[in-house]
Amino acid sequence: MAKIAIMGFGTVGSGVLEVCRRNAGSIARRAGEPVEVKYILDVRDFSASPDAALFVQDIGVILSDPEVKVVVETIGGTKFAYPFVRQCLESGRSVCTSNKEMVATYGAELLALAKAHDAAFLFEASVGGGTPIITPMHQCLAANTISEITGIVNGTTNFMLTKMKREGMDFAQALKLAQELGYAETKDPGDDVDGRDACRKIAILASLACGHHIYPQNVPARGIRQVGVADVRAADALGCAIKLIAWCRLDGKGGVTAGVEPMMVPFTNQLANVDDVFNAVQMTGDMLGDVVFYGKGAGKLPTASAVVADVVDALKNGAAIHDSLFWKPAAPLAGMMENDRPAPYYIRVKRVATTMLHPITGPGREIFFENGEAGYLIEAATAAQIAQIAEKIETMGGEVCVNLRLLAE
Amino acid sequence: MAKIAIMGFGTVGSGVLEVCRRNAGSIARRAGEPVEVKYILDVRDFSASPDAALFVQDIGVILSDPEVKVVVETIGGTKFAYPFVRQCLESGRSVCTSNKEMVATYGAELLALAKAHDAAFLFEASVGGGTPIITPMHQCLAANTISEITGIVNGTTNFMLTKMKREGMDFAQALKLAQELGYAETKDPGDDVDGRDACRKIAILASLACGHHIYPQNVPARGIRQVGVADVRAADALGCAIKLIAWCRLDGKGGVTAGVEPMMVPFTNQLANVDDVFNAVQMTGDMLGDVVFYGKGAGKLPTASAVVADVVDALKNGAAIHDSLFWKPAAPLAGMMENDRPAPYYIRVKRVATTMLHPITGPGREIFFENGEAGYLIEAATAAQIAQIAEKIETMGGEVCVNLRLLAE
Repeated sequence: MAKIAIMGFGTVGSGVLEVCRRNAGSIARRAGEPVEVKYILDVRDFSASPDAALFVQDIGVILSDPEVKVVVETIGGTKFAYPFVRQCLESGRSVCTSNKEMVATYGAELLALAKAHDAAFLFEASVGGGTPIITPMHQCLAANTISEITGIVNGTTNFMLTKMKREGMDFAQALKLAQELGYAETKDPGDDVDGRDACRKIAILASLACGHHIYPQNVPARGIRQVGVADVRAADALGCAIKLIAWCRLDGKGGVTAGVEPMMVPFTNQLANVDDVFNAVQMTGDMLGDVVFYGKGAGKLPTASAVVADVVDALKNGAAIHDSLFWKPAAPLAGMMENDRPAPYYIRVKRVATTMLHPITGPGREIFFENGEAGYLIEAATAAQIAQIAEKIETMGGEVCVNLRLLAE
Repeated sequence: MAKIAIMGFGTVGSGVLEVCRRNAGSIARRAGEPVEVKYILDVRDFSASPDAALFVQDIGVILSDPEVKVVVETIGGTKFAYPFVRQCLESGRSVCTSNKEMVATYGAELLALAKAHDAAFLFEASVGGGTPIITPMHQCLAANTISEITGIVNGTTNFMLTKMKREGMDFAQALKLAQELGYAETKDPGDDVDGRDACRKIAILASLACGHHIYPQNVPARGIRQVGVADVRAADALGCAIKLIAWCRLDGKGGVTAGVEPMMVPFTNQLANVDDVFNAVQMTGDMLGDVVFYGKGAGKLPTASAVVADVVDALKNGAAIHDSLFWKPAAPLAGMMENDRPAPYYIRVKRVATTMLHPITGPGREIFFENGEAGYLIEAATAAQIAQIAEKIETMGGEVCVNLRLLAE
């Protein structure tokens, strides 16, 4: 009988308990022994819960019980999660977490700490919810050098963009619906709609791909607030869907670029057909070519089932996993990563005639003109050039309302 | 330094050597030590090869070298592969293989043999080529009960169906092109076009999902020979693409049904957009919902990279993998599995008026009528009923040229 503890009994944490109980038989078969939740750490009062006996408020109880070999962290954030996870790893206990903020911020340090104490630090659920991404990436693609990762890793914004496309909603309507359905935070939906959540996830995947820590604060990230109904229609006219894309590119010489931005994705690209709350991550390996992992990116039981799979892995293999699931510490960069590769860009402008754009943007063409706004496709520009173009248009009294890079097919 | 041996220096076997050399650095990082190919077993003469020194013709050389811990089997078939793999496992060496015929036929036995000798028997490359399917299935979905698997697992037929759809080729033209491009065997393309290859793969996935051996000879399998240009057009009119689908369904009480058949796949289903030589496998877990794994289903380097990933795994984790990658021996069934679930069926008939069909098929409607043939959609029937319908039509002097079940969205 393997005993585990859960820290943080919120959505995912309570899901972990539920998954452990509902699939106890098959989990036992895979782990080689039954898995039982012995403690649940949570500061709130659960004395009325049928599982009241499991709850503790002091991590010392967990740390002083030699029976507990694996600890699940589902507190979220870093304030409590980070020191607690450190303590668990330092005590030689393996930790399985769904906490992308903690992994994106302290991943290298916690991986090294785990290694030093012969424990495992696993976080499959931090990217893609229940969809297997990190494990196949470091394990099945072990014989590949990964050159590119492109993905839809935020279910909330993908749900909103799908509603905007299919039902003609605008950003505010789609956000309201996402909040009503519990997909977006009611108080501050910024983590999702401004791309911070996606940024943490791509930072984790980029770190794993390149082998050293990539910090979210060095990854330029923007969300979908600027995307309007006119842009969604223009995308359709261009044979594209607008998706919030998290991407990273490795040059094979240690150089890494990454970003999060809404992009025009051609229908011929697999990612264009990924709708609703689904996530999909495409990876390019030098031996393998492209693979795509697709599934629900969030949700209580899907995410919890990924955490429990990590628990099974930690119980079976312990620290042996670490040779492949590992990246080195690195200092943050001084500034932002820059994407200097030119690509076609769609812009929506107002208070400027499209006939005036050509001298500023180079070759391009108008996609639509309505309500004093124009959609315009620039044949090729870098992100820096797009910023310069926006400045120039501003000096002319105009405005670039949104810019969307075209993803290659 | 870890030493390995390769048995069978064909396409995949030579790819394994190439992958080990080209990505030596990253493989060493993941395995925790460099990986070197010490022997290559092949009966053919490679004395002119730059690697001539590695070749041996006697498996005894490998079995008597204690340095060799992991053996790659890429001979194919079962005549030599099976006894050689048995010998390797009996000697306590782990085996990594891409040989779907051997795994589908002897999987349970070889897994038990590996377990008994504290070795690993790994076969990620046997399904989906380089695309990670088996590892995420048994590892990342460890906390799920899998209820359904639906996939495109044969790249050759998917390439042919794509050509038939996009370029209006008929079966013979598409087959000829697939043969010219090396996707289909020239002598006997039957393994691919008659569904035997897909049948072995779904038998492997079904065995892993249900926990006991499912034999290919119990899985009804048919290929795409009957699919004509008219059917491809009818599919389009119905909002579908024709795909060779390998599927299995578990009832949660130990019951398993599986099959391989060309099906009408609605465009709204992820699998409808999987074209060319790509493979995709969709799995439904009780906690997770649907996940899809997508990538190239074949090819020298992709497949070899999956074999090498297994080698890394075997070196790191050895027999520990086996608690989850395992199924029990079972006797073959006396007859074929039967799919008794009703579904809409498309049939193409000749020498019978569609007005005559209604009393035989129950509710349905004509899709097209041309050149004396009619496409007809039956609202609901079981596979057995479709066989009865075909018999009745025959007694009327007509003929059912093809029947295609409609996959649910």
